[in-house]
Amino acid sequence: MANTNIYITKPLLPKIEDYKKELEDIWASMWLTNFGEKHNILENKLKDVLKVENLSLINNGTTALLIALKVLDLPIGSEVITTPFTFAATPHCITWNGCKPVFCDIEPETMTINADKIESLITPKTSAILGVHVYGFPCDVEKIDKIAKKRKLKVIYDAAHAFSTEINGKGIGNFGDITMFSFHATKLFNTIEGGCLTCKDKTLKEKINILRDFGIQSEEVIEDIGINGKMNEFQAAMGLENLKIFREEQQKRKELKEFYSQKLSDIKGIRIPKLSDNVSDSYQYYPIVIEDDFSVSRDELHEKLKSKNIYTRKYFYPACHDYECYKNEIYSDLKVVNDIKHRVLCLPFYGNLDIAAANEICEVIANV
Amino acid sequence: MANTNIYITKPLLPKIEDYKKELEDIWASMWLTNFGEKHNILENKLKDVLKVENLSLINNGTTALLIALKVLDLPIGSEVITTPFTFAATPHCITWNGCKPVFCDIEPETMTINADKIESLITPKTSAILGVHVYGFPCDVEKIDKIAKKRKLKVIYDAAHAFSTEINGKGIGNFGDITMFSFHATKLFNTIEGGCLTCKDKTLKEKINILRDFGIQSEEVIEDIGINGKMNEFQAAMGLENLKIFREEQQKRKELKEFYSQKLSDIKGIRIPKLSDNVSDSYQYYPIVIEDDFSVSRDELHEKLKSKNIYTRKYFYPACHDYECYKNEIYSDLKVVNDIKHRVLCLPFYGNLDIAAANEICEVIANV
Repeated sequence: MANTNIYITKPLLPKIEDYKKELEDIWASMWLTNFGEKHNILENKLKDVLKVENLSLINNGTTALLIALKVLDLPIGSEVITTPFTFAATPHCITWNGCKPVFCDIEPETMTINADKIESLITPKTSAILGVHVYGFPCDVEKIDKIAKKRKLKVIYDAAHAFSTEINGKGIGNFGDITMFSFHATKLFNTIEGGCLTCKDKTLKEKINILRDFGIQSEEVIEDIGINGKMNEFQAAMGLENLKIFREEQQKRKELKEFYSQKLSDIKGIRIPKLSDNVSDSYQYYPIVIEDDFSVSRDELHEKLKSKNIYTRKYFYPACHDYECYKNEIYSDLKVVNDIKHRVLCLPFYGNLDIAAANEICEVIANV
Repeated sequence: MANTNIYITKPLLPKIEDYKKELEDIWASMWLTNFGEKHNILENKLKDVLKVENLSLINNGTTALLIALKVLDLPIGSEVITTPFTFAATPHCITWNGCKPVFCDIEPETMTINADKIESLITPKTSAILGVHVYGFPCDVEKIDKIAKKRKLKVIYDAAHAFSTEINGKGIGNFGDITMFSFHATKLFNTIEGGCLTCKDKTLKEKINILRDFGIQSEEVIEDIGINGKMNEFQAAMGLENLKIFREEQQKRKELKEFYSQKLSDIKGIRIPKLSDNVSDSYQYYPIVIEDDFSVSRDELHEKLKSKNIYTRKYFYPACHDYECYKNEIYSDLKVVNDIKHRVLCLPFYGNLDIAAANEICEVIANV
């Protein structure tokens, strides 16, 4: 049994001295929020890291997604086709915008929205497709973009799990109309809480910037129903420091992933979902799939590990269409997701998880 | 001419050493957000300061107001009677909740919603009244509560300007169903960005707490359309430190207010709105009203001061019913607000504004 609890993740933190140095600037300027200097520097630096042309920082990923849907002017009451295999924020942001989430089934391997099933869900009320690059597995962006073009739909991607992911060397924030990234404390790259939106269209970015500041265009002109999406200087300072160290964190996670995969890949009934060769890994999560021929169920394995002080996560269980607030809104066969949601388990995954602990986790799984 | 620019406010900041000490705890716990220890301590301390029974911290005042309206379950399409003499966030939060703001005129002295004009705006679609304690002037809470009871309406108060305000010794967060406070950097008490909701009903507070965490009731139960309203530990740390010094800041502002009032009260055409004797001042803003018999208009005075490097604020101009997004939604006579919005000017007001600077501001006004 692990001597101390092993949690699913630990936040990436710079050296406290480095963060304290950032504070000196804030105290000198007395500028705490509202698009300060650190905010603007971080925004620029992130454009390079994510290889995108336009990027707007937002105070958290949920607000970012709220704004992404708002700026696309989706009609009230319209339908947004999305995946139920995601965090609550995804469908909630659709609902907050007065639209209706229409849940589409997922692909068994990538666990992203099944692009082949999207068209059958399109109705005259459909206004957009919201795909999620779950665990850093990219949606089938080509197929989705093709459908969207043909059917004149907007496309939003939730890349909360896909910081720095690239497809054929292209930053994942370059697909669809808008992409949202999350910088929550549990994410590979964090700004305490935080997030951003990326898009190709400069005019869209300008509108996003107005919406994140209450719809204020200038001191005396307010034209839109905006919101408070301002990332403050303390968040931006964390981002600036974490930008310096996230590649090192990724390297450590890469090694951890290789260790896990080598130890677990031969265990009967444990499947390790694989990224395509043309996709770079964000190293956000380490999900495994518990198949029928494993000795116990996913839930039993989760409990077994917990009894050894190892905390894994049934992520995502329940799926969104199981929530009380959405369970009456199912219009399609959700066979794959209804299976997968009982099978996926995310293992503890962060740079400083030592190999002894990882080894113990693998031993428990092997000997359950 | 002022040697350096004089701005409308400067944020209250603790000594940097004190804030750095708070960081030590955060680095030790590695708990950055999601209802950490500092969050919970601040929540408890604020209950005492604001003299309320139930208080929920939120990441900013706008999200707080979004949640306040959401938790009251106002029907989609229903009407919320509110004041147009407020910041954009007030009507925007009504709209984000799928409701319609109905603008009511204000009282000439307190500049708050005119309670005598509310009843004539009530229709079968009215679901709530949203009053704003603008500049710390309390709404006519007794009259509003009486109307609400009689007409079975919910009451929300926006107390963004009224931190620590009391009516007859009773904390202002005790009126109506829910009250929102803002802790934005420009507010008397700040948590960088931030806010809270207060209410008398414990069940309502529990629902608020679920909504600020995405509607998550427990790991596997999600019943409501929540949002990310989490105040992080860096914000809470700022709150804990600022709680120690805000009374001193208030005392300095009290002296500044007395100085301004003494110098300005004899100038013909300058009116200084007065709080009732039974109301304690939050010392958030120092608004003056430029009457017809002053030598120049408010806008001219604003420009004149600006030419001397003194930045005042035409707060609130434009009023909300003037915004492009609301200008087609006017259903009542807004005579008083249409007059006042051209007359109010908020003067620079913060504890460390020195008397020489304040004197210079008064001299410019006296000699314009």
